[in-house]
Amino acid sequence: MAIFSAASSAASSAASPGAVAATLRRVRERAPLIHNITNVVVTNSTANALLAIGASPAMVEAAEEVAEFARIADALVINLGTMTPARGHAMDLAAAAAREAGTPWVLDPVAVGALSYRSQVAVGLLAHAPQVVRGNGSEILALEALSATDGDGVGVGGRGVDSAHGSELAVEAAMRLAARTGAVVAVSGATDLITDGCQVVGVRNGHPMMQRVTGLGCTATALIGACLAVEPDALAASVHGMVLIGLAGELAAERSRGPGSLQMELLDALYQLDDAMLTARTMIVPVMPGDQLINLHS
Amino acid sequence: MAIFSAASSAASSAASPGAVAATLRRVRERAPLIHNITNVVVTNSTANALLAIGASPAMVEAAEEVAEFARIADALVINLGTMTPARGHAMDLAAAAAREAGTPWVLDPVAVGALSYRSQVAVGLLAHAPQVVRGNGSEILALEALSATDGDGVGVGGRGVDSAHGSELAVEAAMRLAARTGAVVAVSGATDLITDGCQVVGVRNGHPMMQRVTGLGCTATALIGACLAVEPDALAASVHGMVLIGLAGELAAERSRGPGSLQMELLDALYQLDDAMLTARTMIVPVMPGDQLINLHS
Amino acid sequence: MAIFSAASSAASSAASPGAVAATLRRVRERAPLIHNITNVVVTNSTANALLAIGASPAMVEAAEEVAEFARIADALVINLGTMTPARGHAMDLAAAAAREAGTPWVLDPVAVGALSYRSQVAVGLLAHAPQVVRGNGSEILALEALSATDGDGVGVGGRGVDSAHGSELAVEAAMRLAARTGAVVAVSGATDLITDGCQVVGVRNGHPMMQRVTGLGCTATALIGACLAVEPDALAASVHGMVLIGLAGELAAERSRGPGSLQMELLDALYQLDDAMLTARTMIVPVMPGDQLINLHS
Repeated sequence: MAIFSAASSAASSAASPGAVAATLRRVRERAPLIHNITNVVVTNSTANALLAIGASPAMVEAAEEVAEFARIADALVINLGTMTPARGHAMDLAAAAAREAGTPWVLDPVAVGALSYRSQVAVGLLAHAPQVVRGNGSEILALEALSATDGDGVGVGGRGVDSAHGSELAVEAAMRLAARTGAVVAVSGATDLITDGCQVVGVRNGHPMMQRVTGLGCTATALIGACLAVEPDALAASVHGMVLIGLAGELAAERSRGPGSLQMELLDALYQLDDAMLTARTMIVPVMPGDQLINLHS
Repeated sequence: MAIFSAASSAASSAASPGAVAATLRRVRERAPLIHNITNVVVTNSTANALLAIGASPAMVEAAEEVAEFARIADALVINLGTMTPARGHAMDLAAAAAREAGTPWVLDPVAVGALSYRSQVAVGLLAHAPQVVRGNGSEILALEALSATDGDGVGVGGRGVDSAHGSELAVEAAMRLAARTGAVVAVSGATDLITDGCQVVGVRNGHPMMQRVTGLGCTATALIGACLAVEPDALAASVHGMVLIGLAGELAAERSRGPGSLQMELLDALYQLDDAMLTARTMIVPVMPGDQLINLHS
Repeated sequence: MAIFSAASSAASSAASPGAVAATLRRVRERAPLIHNITNVVVTNSTANALLAIGASPAMVEAAEEVAEFARIADALVINLGTMTPARGHAMDLAAAAAREAGTPWVLDPVAVGALSYRSQVAVGLLAHAPQVVRGNGSEILALEALSATDGDGVGVGGRGVDSAHGSELAVEAAMRLAARTGAVVAVSGATDLITDGCQVVGVRNGHPMMQRVTGLGCTATALIGACLAVEPDALAASVHGMVLIGLAGELAAERSRGPGSLQMELLDALYQLDDAMLTARTMIVPVMPGDQLINLHS
């Protein structure tokens, strides 16, 4: 049972349903260009989710092109899902270019800790100062250990891409990782926990059947990227992105008979999300000093 | 406002609903083998669209295999969506083999003009004499400038994969590109414009929500490839391919609540398209001398 | 017309609806980690099918990672669909590690025989002793010829990824391939035929519209991998995997208007499959000495 402290300002105006709606409206108005270097499993579903909320996705992954594109994009999303050395090299170039050009960027350290090679890549990418890191409990625990010990956290994580740890078990590691790197860290779980190292905000939107659709964590990361392109406060952008994917997943699950229809309905739901829906169903919960997160799951 | 000349023979029998139906029938009867070297975002959706209209798709992209396969295929489709040097090398080998073997081929210059590397690759591929080039307005404007100046058209195009220019703004560039290369050039837009350098044919099928589904331009290119495998007249094949994707998109949009269901319904619609539907709803418009294309959008 | 002998023990308890249900139950309970090195067309649909039946898929394909991951996975699935030298090298490392670690593995020799390069790769992979090989008739005929002659079977297969031969035409080659390699060989077709070199079991679940959805053969192979992770008898696991995909496809086709909805409904059906459905509709047919397989299609 994790017990920790968090500032009460977590329940700020940036964490209100109205703020989520305002971010979504800006995404739809501006159609920000989101540069994705992601894994081969989720390219299509990620592009479609970004299009469904009104962003303009592009998947550009050649070393010859990524720096040029990261500079003109409104946000960059890097996902380690199906690492290769060529993709790892391109990620490094893109993240460096993004940092230099002031393009905000998000890191999704898929399966870090379970595999040695990508663990090294992930630690290397942290040096390019992502605005946000999003992972599941196992990934955040592993990345925190790796970044603290410079490579000795392999074996901390899960066995594959699925988490062996609930988000509440990773929240202290997330706060340390955020404090050490300056990134906002978002931990997905039954309650998503988002922290800048001081504050912790919880998001309770979502549905268990979402775990039976591949890559919805990757989609969450991409949506955070879209929010970050129009909302400079990385904590707010991360919270808003998690609400959008979680609420769309809930609405989709209500219309689905299984994970096939859930995947389809999720895109329709992202497309249809409106102020009324966000006002009625956004579940942002400030996490207060002494909270026992285990209770958030009931 | 674009004003240009076009031969009245555009309204030829090859541009009639009956001709589209005849091409579709031949695709279903012959199940032509379509060799695709395409981007990692749309491999699945492209293969499924080709299967839905009755073609036999294969994605073969290794340098070790592409020439061998391009020779036995009934058509080749090359799409620059997620370029890498390895894929670029394979594209070059495949296009050369296709030309030599008489396999008709189609080029989709995704995001050309926005990025330097792929712009060079695209100009290089034009030397292998594609039968058809299909792109959006920005891509065709950029490719025409690049091919005229041997590499100086970078910056003409859009910012990413989405067009910053309507098809009507690109029609004169399309005609020049067609005249220069011998390829039929198809420009996607609210009205698709297809030209062989002399004639210009417009297709007004389609639905705005199609822009919220990733890769439907790529699907259009692949369907043109399938038509080209059974219809040697490249202008007719291109018009027929654009009608098939546009009409299927319209029918799908009528049954959809958002882009998720649209993507699914589009495949069902391609599978179900029949003569009656094509006769009732094909929207091929001859573009006559002095036409003001801007009016086609109303 | 193929006439051959098979042991009557094919109709063993391992080939009963109850055994399929037991395997499915174990997959859902244990959520086995399935390592996939597959083609870029089906990564998403394969992962989703594995998630839908309760397995935990991971796509790991870098040479730097595959051996490490194949050792911790519960089963490995190798699919030659979009071969590249990098992927071929990774497959070799993964298969060798799987064999050494005792991780069962399945080979899907997509388009073997149609293309020279992958034919060599496929023969090389057989040396790592897969527990199961699954392909269509053309692929199994080609692979058997290739493995017998050490590389001289090119040209035996189909033209692309679709089969030019029914399963019944490949059953004798399948039995020889099984006897020679020690692998169970599964031949997909109107009747799927699964053999360990002595017994032949038929599975008649499935629906013709499944051929209009890309990669369902690849999905079948992946589901066999999931079954193999919880059922050490490779013949039983292969039969169970073919029943699961075939029955889910049937159920999906009943609710579909075309291949788009079929693809979606298939995932829902895999998720919903239960004992009652399996008991009512499993179509396992023992193939007896002297059977004329051609009759199985009526």
